Amino acid sequence: MPPISDGILESALYVDDVGASARFYEKIFGLPVMVDFGPRGCAMKAGERQVLLLFKKGASLSIQSPHDGDGELHVAFAIPAAELERWEAWLAENEIPVEERTTWECGGKSIYFRDPDRHLLEIATPGVWPF
Amino acid sequence: MPPISDGILESALYVDDVGASARFYEKIFGLPVMVDFGPRGCAMKAGERQVLLLFKKGASLSIQSPHDGDGELHVAFAIPAAELERWEAWLAENEIPVEERTTWECGGKSIYFRDPDRHLLEIATPGVWPF
Repeated sequence: MPPISDGILESALYVDDVGASARFYEKIFGLPVMVDFGPRGCAMKAGERQVLLLFKKGASLSIQSPHDGDGELHVAFAIPAAELERWEAWLAENEIPVEERTTWECGGKSIYFRDPDRHLLEIATPGVWPF
Repeated sequence: MPPISDGILESALYVDDVGASARFYEKIFGLPVMVDFGPRGCAMKAGERQVLLLFKKGASLSIQSPHDGDGELHVAFAIPAAELERWEAWLAENEIPVEERTTWECGGKSIYFRDPDRHLLEIATPGVWPF
């Protein structure tokens, strides 16, 4: 079996309003738009070597390799443990309600909230997973 | 704005048959199952510090923070440039049809194919994105 390099390069969310979603991820997470696909969506730089793709719902059905999604999907971002309190304050300051707080077996902590399409976002400190 | 650590920790796909999908990602990409959520799904280790979550469609709607998805979603995995030919051979050996091959402006190459739910998978060498 040939290897992959190190995990997932691109994750995609399907959204109603690409501009509004891009502004949300830029404002809340600091992700810059890296490539603009026009009305079809955009690619946001999520860390050193990862990409969060935002696609307008239904707009990638007539390309060569079609894809599309619906629903309230889930994506998690890693945060340093020492930043959890600042994240709580930052979400409050931006009037983003926290939907759930969890402390995991390995000691990690997660906070869950929603993006403009109600995709379920999680920020997670080290110790959520056994690595 | 508080920082994230380095990108996306968890990406999720919603699938019809968790066992079949887990076997696919284990066989084709070598991802081990890290945590089994029973009938709701499983977490696969995707690289050193990333997780691919496979959720049974419709099975995460009655948890505290519900999420769910439908459609043919998109995920990409990074591969080393030197492994592209071995990946072509590996997909052929496993009778997985390649749907599209692309060479990008920055010199990177992508190969697109489907998982058991027709989620659009991409393997991409360095040079697909400007980083």
